Order: sequence, then structure tokens, then C-alpha cells
Amino acid sequence: MGKKNLFITFEGGESSGKTTHSRLLKKYLEEKGYEVLLTREPDGAVRDILLNPDLNIVPLSELFLFEAARAQHVKKIVFPALRAGKVVICDRFTDSTVAYQGYGRKLDLQLIDRLNSVASFGLIPVLTIYLDISISEVFLNKSKKLNKKICCDRIERESLQFHERVREGYRSQAEKYPERIKIVKTQETFEKTEALIREIIDLVL
Amino acid sequence: MGKKNLFITFEGGESSGKTTHSRLLKKYLEEKGYEVLLTREPDGAVRDILLNPDLNIVPLSELFLFEAARAQHVKKIVFPALRAGKVVICDRFTDSTVAYQGYGRKLDLQLIDRLNSVASFGLIPVLTIYLDISISEVFLNKSKKLNKKICCDRIERESLQFHERVREGYRSQAEKYPERIKIVKTQETFEKTEALIREIIDLVL
Repeated sequence: MGKKNLFITFEGGESSGKTTHSRLLKKYLEEKGYEVLLTREPDGAVRDILLNPDLNIVPLSELFLFEAARAQHVKKIVFPALRAGKVVICDRFTDSTVAYQGYGRKLDLQLIDRLNSVASFGLIPVLTIYLDISISEVFLNKSKKLNKKICCDRIERESLQFHERVREGYRSQAEKYPERIKIVKTQETFEKTEALIREIIDLVL
Repeated sequence: MGKKNLFITFEGGESSGKTTHSRLLKKYLEEKGYEVLLTREPDGAVRDILLNPDLNIVPLSELFLFEAARAQHVKKIVFPALRAGKVVICDRFTDSTVAYQGYGRKLDLQLIDRLNSVASFGLIPVLTIYLDISISEVFLNKSKKLNKKICCDRIERESLQFHERVREGYRSQAEKYPERIKIVKTQETFEKTEALIREIIDLVL
């Protein structure tokens, strides 16, 4: 991948498998000899605020919190790893903000683009894997989680309509940036999804 | 003050007496028959992050955190009180962001103006009292605090040069908005400073 910034992001709705597949990709790339940092957004103290279901955060404040977490994360975690020659795989990045705060919460999309660009110090992923899962599957997964009592944080609790809008947001981003964002429809088994992801990665490498 | 939004802010550097004088003003206005809400920025969960001296927050992230706290505070605390006909006195507001993050941290002033306007939903104080204290006094107060072991949070720990730039920021805001921002030089006793503030308030009322 030459002198490109090896910054790869995973995007997708709740329960789309981002965490699983970003871990599998890390392993795959390490087997190929790359040094890999797997990280996620948002992280740190701001994550606790954002996921706390007891806080009634207004949408605009939520947007600023995500951008605060992003600026900190890019500067302190992502840039140093890229400078050290690592591949950085990030679970969620700027497209999440467009999908959730823009389409989901209906905040101004131009404002979001501007803040995303400022907060990421202009960093753009070389590749974004968008894991596309049908919303009915998401809600099926959620009810399984509920049964196991491991659900739900503040954002997982949102309505079906909200998650439909988020999906629309992701798909419109993928249309806007076809070179960067690759849509991977989640398959019946994670092995099949993984195979699709590897095909894309092998092309980019 | 007719149908104006009775939103009054106190601004100034560390140890300038904002807390004392905003309390005294509340009392003064209540004696005149006003219902008054005294509040401050930042508040809530974000305040704990911002003042934590162990967190190494990058300037841009700090800016977004202040704007996140502002959006939440304006929407949930300030607007409802103004709608209920109260006078709202706020300890710090948008001018602090210009002074601290703009002049102090040297972030882009145009970006700050834009974010301030978005995060405050366009709310502008009818009056801003800027308590101007010489930086040498600030550092004298700080060393007293240190002796009492009640100092210092993350921002109080900044250098003399930082606080000089903050003061320059406030003074340039006061020059830019002379109608709104009134400079009150802190006097040798708080009673004398209070008398100056009351004069201004009486003119505005």
C-alpha cells in the first residue's frame, strides 16, 4: 500500500458485526506481516457520557461530544500509530456521525461535514468497510440481547425509524464516496461475511 | 427591560470574583423583585472531564467539550428559565471560549465564533460584565489558594503567558462589542467592585 496512510474504518448500524470483523481483519493483516492497531470511537471519558442511558443529551450536544472524542482520539492514538507505520483499523469514524447525528437526529449535514473535517484534522480513511445489515435483523439481534439482559445503551434504545434513517445515511455516504466506502452485506454466517471483506482488502493491498 | 431576554453573563479570568459578584447581583435583583436563576458553564458530566488535571486533553477536543456543555446548558437550563420570565445570570459563556480557547490556546477564531453561535442556538447576552483583574493579582490569589491547598484545576495551572493572552482576548471582545460588554476593573474591596456593577445594572434596567 506504498506511502498511503493505512487507515481503515468499519462502519455500520448496531449489531452489524463491526467489532467481530475488525478483530478478524486485524488477525488477517497481522498474519500478512503488518503491525496493526485496532481502536474505536468514541473512547475514554466521553464514551461513558455518550452511552449513559440516564443522561438526556440534546442532539447538538451529542454531536459536539462525538467530535471532542474524535479530535482527542485522532491526535493521541491514530496519528502516532500511522506515523509508526502501523495499519490502523478504527471501529466507527466520521461516517457514523453523518449517519447517526445527521440522518438519525436530523442535524444539519453541512455543519456535520465541517465539524468532521475539523475534528479529524483532515484525516480520511483509505478504505471504509460498511457492514450493511437489514434493520429487521438488528431488532432480532436486539431482542436476543434483551433476553440475555446485555441490552441496551442510550443509542441502541432508539426507535426502528431512527435506525432506518441511520442506514439511509450510510447508504447515501457510500453512494457519495464509492471509491472509499465498500458496502458488505452481512451474510448468514460470519465466515461468509469475512470472506467478502478479505476479497476487498486483498484488492486494496 | 421590556421584552428583552434578560440573559446576563459574567466573564473574567481565574480569581476575578465572578462567582462572588454573580451571587451578589442575584441578591440585588431579587430585592428589586426579579426572579433570578444563577447558573454556570460548563456544568454536568462534561465539567468533570474539563477540570480534571490528570487528563491530557488536546485543545480542539477541549473546544468541542465546552460547546457540548453549552448546547446542553442553553437548551435545558437557560431557555426554559428565560421563557418563564426569569433573569438568568450565567457565570461564563461564549466570550470565555474566545478568550481561553481562541487567545489562550490559539485555536482559529472564526471557527470558534461559528461554533459559539451554533452551540448557543444564537442566544446573545443582553449584558456581559467583564471583571478585569491584573494578572499579577491572579497569581497572588493563586499562591494564596495553593497555601490553603485548594488549588489548582487543569486550567488554573496554565502559565502566566496563557493568562495574559486570555486577558487580551477578553479585552478585544469588549472592544468589538462595546454595547454588550462592560469592563469592570476589580477594586481593592469587593464592595467597591459591587458598587460599579450595580451602577451598570441600574442603567440597563
